[in-house]
Amino acid sequence: MPSMHDSQTTRTISFADLTELLRQIFVRHGTSPEVARVLAANCAAAERDGSHSHGIFRIKGYLSSLAAGWVDGQAEPKVEDVGAAFVRVDAMGGFAQPAMQAAKALVIEKARNAGIAILAIRNSHHFAALWPDVEPFAQEGLVALSVVNSMTCVVPHGAQKPLFGTNPIAFAAPRADGQPIVFDMATSAIAHGDVQIAAREGRMLAPGMGVDRNGMPTKDPKAILDGGALLPFGGYKGSALSMMVELLSAALTGGNFSFEFDMSTSPGAQTPWTGQVIIVIDPDKGSGQAFAERSEELVRQMHGVGQQRMPGDRRYRQREQSLKEGIVLSADDLERLEALARV
Amino acid sequence: MPSMHDSQTTRTISFADLTELLRQIFVRHGTSPEVARVLAANCAAAERDGSHSHGIFRIKGYLSSLAAGWVDGQAEPKVEDVGAAFVRVDAMGGFAQPAMQAAKALVIEKARNAGIAILAIRNSHHFAALWPDVEPFAQEGLVALSVVNSMTCVVPHGAQKPLFGTNPIAFAAPRADGQPIVFDMATSAIAHGDVQIAAREGRMLAPGMGVDRNGMPTKDPKAILDGGALLPFGGYKGSALSMMVELLSAALTGGNFSFEFDMSTSPGAQTPWTGQVIIVIDPDKGSGQAFAERSEELVRQMHGVGQQRMPGDRRYRQREQSLKEGIVLSADDLERLEALARV
Repeated sequence: MPSMHDSQTTRTISFADLTELLRQIFVRHGTSPEVARVLAANCAAAERDGSHSHGIFRIKGYLSSLAAGWVDGQAEPKVEDVGAAFVRVDAMGGFAQPAMQAAKALVIEKARNAGIAILAIRNSHHFAALWPDVEPFAQEGLVALSVVNSMTCVVPHGAQKPLFGTNPIAFAAPRADGQPIVFDMATSAIAHGDVQIAAREGRMLAPGMGVDRNGMPTKDPKAILDGGALLPFGGYKGSALSMMVELLSAALTGGNFSFEFDMSTSPGAQTPWTGQVIIVIDPDKGSGQAFAERSEELVRQMHGVGQQRMPGDRRYRQREQSLKEGIVLSADDLERLEALARV
Repeated sequence: MPSMHDSQTTRTISFADLTELLRQIFVRHGTSPEVARVLAANCAAAERDGSHSHGIFRIKGYLSSLAAGWVDGQAEPKVEDVGAAFVRVDAMGGFAQPAMQAAKALVIEKARNAGIAILAIRNSHHFAALWPDVEPFAQEGLVALSVVNSMTCVVPHGAQKPLFGTNPIAFAAPRADGQPIVFDMATSAIAHGDVQIAAREGRMLAPGMGVDRNGMPTKDPKAILDGGALLPFGGYKGSALSMMVELLSAALTGGNFSFEFDMSTSPGAQTPWTGQVIIVIDPDKGSGQAFAERSEELVRQMHGVGQQRMPGDRRYRQREQSLKEGIVLSADDLERLEALARV
């Protein structure tokens, strides 16, 4: 299936083959066929688009949480239709992505009929990037906004101890002459993975990224990892946004706040057990002008003042290359994946 | 009506009397009674809450725009019911606040029935703070999110010239044992008014606030005001949020982008002519748990880790004091207002 690459240390695999390989891994490790299908597509798409922190790098964490019994790989999400524009899903302790898939057609139908619709997922584990949850809506001409809370590692602005998760916000909007405008940003100043990389490389961080175990500002990534915590991006503003993510993802959905679950009771657990909100808007109900033409005009103007790269552009370029030439993985990584699929 | 204060240079006026005084000013300067009522209540509330940059300080700009014929003080907003959860308003070149008032009951009804509703206002002038637009929804037990674009003064991250407005985001959510949680943040690193104050006081700004006329970073507020521009807060993340505000407020509503209107053709014009979006969610359709109890728990936990002040707290404290002891204005300011009401 995977073909040998020129280099001895890398191999190339097609997107379809990587998706199938990951699907087999999930099934072999106890998920239902549907959960395996959804997670494999999500994870392979991240790897395909160069979103490495949420690609195959995550497989180990997924399997660890499954093995611990912390997340239910067989969960069947319960979709509740509670209003002309409101869909609720109890993920039943399973992953958020299959819960979203189970409700997606209904949410799109409601958004197109009512003009806007909200999907509130609770009792769910989200361990992936957030952009794959919003981009597909924009591919269908809809505008989507999603937030998901995670696990305590960010100190609210003005506080001494961590409380919030990295709590990302993702947004997607269609445009006329190109791929959708999509962003996916943690509300923390830096991702945990980047702190780990800096620690490994012995680099100091820029100021304002985190605090040590005593709550004092530090540029030392090791001090952040050793009982310290992250800071929100942009000071009190990023902190307020992170609080909003908690309120929408947990208080609104009925899920856990980032500080409400205790993974230590379940050794090996790695996936945050919280909630997620997705708001979908049909822009055809809006201006009467073509939204996608207008967003294209904004992109044109942004290029005109010198912004060369739009949010999402790097992913689209990497996607194009991966679909044409295959996804390049280290031979070691690919062997490990193949071994996991045979377990 | 206003009573003399102990000090010779300040006077105290009740909230009701300030509202009435401002109402008279607006009527005398050509607005309809309804527009005067709405703008006066909004502006007096800002002054009452210590939101001075959007209180009586703004009256001059309002009247200047009205005198220029740039904004229509007599406009009658046209409300369009376009879906079970979508309301559109053409503000007809008038102010955004009366347009919102005209549609508010319908939006609340839709949010309660459908679970979520969106109000898309276009062809509108917004010259006030954004928190007064969302707080009232939270006072009624609803969650509200609003964005409004303004006028070109912010350089997108990675660009050389300004394009976006200060493009604020406001959010409000009810809580069980206290006033709603409300924030209102510009997506620019600093407000224009604060740059002006620093320039007057001869102070340098913190780094990262703005650029000079050549697009080079500067800490000199005068260089920002003299053909320079502001930067987004939080680097590329704040910039992406500002872009989202443009897309929602203009592309979705059918309003102008921040760069699409030319005030120079109308000397004296000061109010940005754009669009606004308000999303209202009924949390009772959410978790089945009481949202306000859950948000109260989040506030408790935020206090527990050392965050002393919640977003909005300062306004509520000032409000309480103003309602008890009256609003303190400089005697000069109050005289000027009284003169404007007699014109």
